Amino acid sequence: MKSAFKRVGLIGKTGDHNVAVTVRALVDFLERHKAKILLDEGIADMAPDSKGSIVDRDLLAMKCDLAIVVGGDGTLLNAARSLAEPGVAVLGVNLGRLGFLVDVSPEEMTRQLEQIFSGDYLEEERTLLHASVTRDGEAIDDSSALNDVTIHKKDIARMIELDTWIDGHFLNSNRSDGLIIATPTGSTAYALSGGGPILHPGLDAITLVPICPHTLSNRPIVIHDNAIIEVVIHEGTVQAQITCDGQISLTLDPGDRITVRKHDHSLRLIHPPGHDYFEILRKKLRWSEQP
Amino acid sequence: MKSAFKRVGLIGKTGDHNVAVTVRALVDFLERHKAKILLDEGIADMAPDSKGSIVDRDLLAMKCDLAIVVGGDGTLLNAARSLAEPGVAVLGVNLGRLGFLVDVSPEEMTRQLEQIFSGDYLEEERTLLHASVTRDGEAIDDSSALNDVTIHKKDIARMIELDTWIDGHFLNSNRSDGLIIATPTGSTAYALSGGGPILHPGLDAITLVPICPHTLSNRPIVIHDNAIIEVVIHEGTVQAQITCDGQISLTLDPGDRITVRKHDHSLRLIHPPGHDYFEILRKKLRWSEQP
Amino acid sequence: MKSAFKRVGLIGKTGDHNVAVTVRALVDFLERHKAKILLDEGIADMAPDSKGSIVDRDLLAMKCDLAIVVGGDGTLLNAARSLAEPGVAVLGVNLGRLGFLVDVSPEEMTRQLEQIFSGDYLEEERTLLHASVTRDGEAIDDSSALNDVTIHKKDIARMIELDTWIDGHFLNSNRSDGLIIATPTGSTAYALSGGGPILHPGLDAITLVPICPHTLSNRPIVIHDNAIIEVVIHEGTVQAQITCDGQISLTLDPGDRITVRKHDHSLRLIHPPGHDYFEILRKKLRWSEQP
Amino acid sequence: MKSAFKRVGLIGKTGDHNVAVTVRALVDFLERHKAKILLDEGIADMAPDSKGSIVDRDLLAMKCDLAIVVGGDGTLLNAARSLAEPGVAVLGVNLGRLGFLVDVSPEEMTRQLEQIFSGDYLEEERTLLHASVTRDGEAIDDSSALNDVTIHKKDIARMIELDTWIDGHFLNSNRSDGLIIATPTGSTAYALSGGGPILHPGLDAITLVPICPHTLSNRPIVIHDNAIIEVVIHEGTVQAQITCDGQISLTLDPGDRITVRKHDHSLRLIHPPGHDYFEILRKKLRWSEQP
Repeated sequence: MKSAFKRVGLIGKTGDHNVAVTVRALVDFLERHKAKILLDEGIADMAPDSKGSIVDRDLLAMKCDLAIVVGGDGTLLNAARSLAEPGVAVLGVNLGRLGFLVDVSPEEMTRQLEQIFSGDYLEEERTLLHASVTRDGEAIDDSSALNDVTIHKKDIARMIELDTWIDGHFLNSNRSDGLIIATPTGSTAYALSGGGPILHPGLDAITLVPICPHTLSNRPIVIHDNAIIEVVIHEGTVQAQITCDGQISLTLDPGDRITVRKHDHSLRLIHPPGHDYFEILRKKLRWSEQP
Repeated sequence: MKSAFKRVGLIGKTGDHNVAVTVRALVDFLERHKAKILLDEGIADMAPDSKGSIVDRDLLAMKCDLAIVVGGDGTLLNAARSLAEPGVAVLGVNLGRLGFLVDVSPEEMTRQLEQIFSGDYLEEERTLLHASVTRDGEAIDDSSALNDVTIHKKDIARMIELDTWIDGHFLNSNRSDGLIIATPTGSTAYALSGGGPILHPGLDAITLVPICPHTLSNRPIVIHDNAIIEVVIHEGTVQAQITCDGQISLTLDPGDRITVRKHDHSLRLIHPPGHDYFEILRKKLRWSEQP
Repeated sequence: MKSAFKRVGLIGKTGDHNVAVTVRALVDFLERHKAKILLDEGIADMAPDSKGSIVDRDLLAMKCDLAIVVGGDGTLLNAARSLAEPGVAVLGVNLGRLGFLVDVSPEEMTRQLEQIFSGDYLEEERTLLHASVTRDGEAIDDSSALNDVTIHKKDIARMIELDTWIDGHFLNSNRSDGLIIATPTGSTAYALSGGGPILHPGLDAITLVPICPHTLSNRPIVIHDNAIIEVVIHEGTVQAQITCDGQISLTLDPGDRITVRKHDHSLRLIHPPGHDYFEILRKKLRWSEQP
Repeated sequence: MKSAFKRVGLIGKTGDHNVAVTVRALVDFLERHKAKILLDEGIADMAPDSKGSIVDRDLLAMKCDLAIVVGGDGTLLNAARSLAEPGVAVLGVNLGRLGFLVDVSPEEMTRQLEQIFSGDYLEEERTLLHASVTRDGEAIDDSSALNDVTIHKKDIARMIELDTWIDGHFLNSNRSDGLIIATPTGSTAYALSGGGPILHPGLDAITLVPICPHTLSNRPIVIHDNAIIEVVIHEGTVQAQITCDGQISLTLDPGDRITVRKHDHSLRLIHPPGHDYFEILRKKLRWSEQP
């Protein structure tokens, strides 16, 4: 049997009444189970009577062996990067709407937490991406992403032109609104809107999906996640932007080189027993639903 | 027989040596044919010895019965809005690369102009769109487009939400990066990159193509061009932008209403005899080309 | 005010109990309204006590001024070709599931028929296609379709190769599983499965949608419905098949030429007041529905 | 250094003069290199003076340590299933047109064979699929495929309905013309025509691509190649067919269950040094080529 969790961090979407209700229920549950509670400082006000410590995100990630994230997929996405490195297990509790990452519902939370704390749970590794930007030969920025690293046009009215290499082999030149480089986790997010395939989370894969490509013959490609992807903003083209999980990190100049590879750490995502990826796919995306 | 053209305006891409060479050849041809020349002020320096008048774009449009535009599709696109209203015939001369709108090549120009001036040419009407923006019940902006009116997200990292009505009937709600409303002319431009169908220029049609729609079940729709299209930026969503033929015209606030309809005037586009739309489609887009 | 209908034909899906119930309710309604009833011989047994005449489909089409079709879109599709030529108005009553063509529900039937018989209804013309096949210069077959004329591969394991001309202009060569030539009515049927756009029924348009094209750069095209479309099965390719509205009409040999054009007659489709095409689109296809 | 090849089998497209020329050049090369030659009986007449043994395909596969296949991708596809099980290395020589699998051109053959025989070559494992059909609980057929296992409609005019399970989890119900289950090798073949993504051959992945799906919200999915895929023909639907690499293997009845999994053996595909998958992708498919 898997060992139970002893030190549990609580993270939540701030300023949401329903999150507060759920956080208090979680505190209650955890206190009954004699778990040490670490409250993310962003939601400290949600559980004023808790005996847990109030800590910042990084300390929380380092000190707990399970982090419970209350909110939507976006809340977990935000927390993912800090939680991946220390290797803490992460469980998501959704509010109202089922998510891909937050798949425990408040109604079933107590029952499912009992199972999880008794060692009855599923665990999967979700790959993150690491992106670094080099300008004139010097590293100027780096960041990580659970969903996708995206290079967008900066000026709404102008396409950008990108050259991509995979493991040193030229892949293609791409005139488009941008390029989405997505993990399996991200394949059901922005990459799907761009026309990309759904990648099962169990795949060691990355997909490259152009956004509104100028050429008709473009089509998404899926490559192994041990590949090193290099994207260069064409000299002579206009400025671009890079976002990681939808957060703008940098304006890119012509000639900038973006290197994307699998992150050294992956996210340990926990699910209650009975978790069914395909069911979430059908329910959340109405994927292949009969009209 | 169609009557020849007497007063010819010349418009060109500025600052391009090849344009200058072609403009001078055109001046030469026109002087030999006793046509009155109106030189757009932007390219006045390209034909310093011409006896033609140097005029601004609006005067040129009003005074000439044929406007010859030298450059790429973008050059003609730019000029189209001023040229549509007075109903002047428009001929495009391309430089290097064949265009959909500029389909006379410099090499064949003299021969084809002889044909055209002897009345042997094809003429088609290309529909323009008119867009107006209403805020709090007041018209705050309006513009026109030969290719497309596009409503984009403004913040790169946030989808926008739009409601669309056709002739007062609710069409759909759309969470996406934006919406392209394109004429047949525009159907081979940005709308095609967004996954839209190719509309033959002879169609009385408009296509609505969502950009990276959040919902899987979206699909472009084609409607009659006498329809009145109203798009409302969702209250509670973020800011958006409207562009006409790729030119930013306005930042849109939640609640803004954009009304798009066929413009009162269309562009009279002239082609040399033998013009073949499908051939341009295949050559320019490599459409349905066998690998 | 539009004049009411005096002679009403009744057509239905055979062998369906619910159809029988609805047919009897219709007979009842029509007898109360002193309309002359013509019962299609296929459903004569459904209304044994009716005073109406039992006639074959062609006589029915010729003698009535309104034909009411009870069943699904398929039932109306089947009847459409006989009903288009004599110009009879056609109304569809659906059973269980809303259709694009059969949009009167049994529950609202009486109320809506009252409106329709008092002249309060919408009428639209739905274009049909006419297809003829020429072999070695001789016409060997012709047929018509409300949805689509489709040329398919015959051997499941072999692509076919087709050349297409529009009004005598070469369009493209196409190696694929086939080609769908669809009316606006058919654009929400098989053509949609093949990746085609939705065409509003008010459009004078035809769309050509390749089925699983071999070339990446293919994309549906929409042309005016006054175009003459010619498709030739490549010499040296394998056999193909032509279907009209999904009914196999002929095996095609290499060299066969299929000519498709707008049919001389269109279908007069009647809707109750308040009919909303876009609502059917959203309800029936879950088009652009938010997950 | 990798050891050179001692016993070389020769397989070719039958009845093609160019193949014969190349086969004779190969025999020449191999005799100079003192390799034992095994000639596939299908091309025995192409090298009448060869000292090699004439053998059937199975014996050839068992006895040689390298099989050279001369023809197109289809020729290698045909041979692949026999060559995978004994684990023989396979090299493809193309005729005229570069293939994904046959990437040695006759012009460079001698030079590249020198490299390969001196141990300078690339080797990759290409996954095959194994498909078995169960009817009323009994296995009635099984087959294997290098590209894809495809379940098609049998009657051109009728959709089929399929239920799919992955590792015992329900995936979806699918009303369509069929379903393509493709390896990375097959992802650039029929699956690509159906709208599937390109999967790099290095991926441990299988893609499921519906053919003309009835539902708008369908989208290809990519899963791990250790998954067991079960497809059941809906009771109450019509007959279907199963093909492996485009060869019809069986008519399927409603209720039939098709189980697809990774084959126990994979194909050892040899490439000359400098082989570049992405280059073949661009050249052969004109993938993402700029117009």
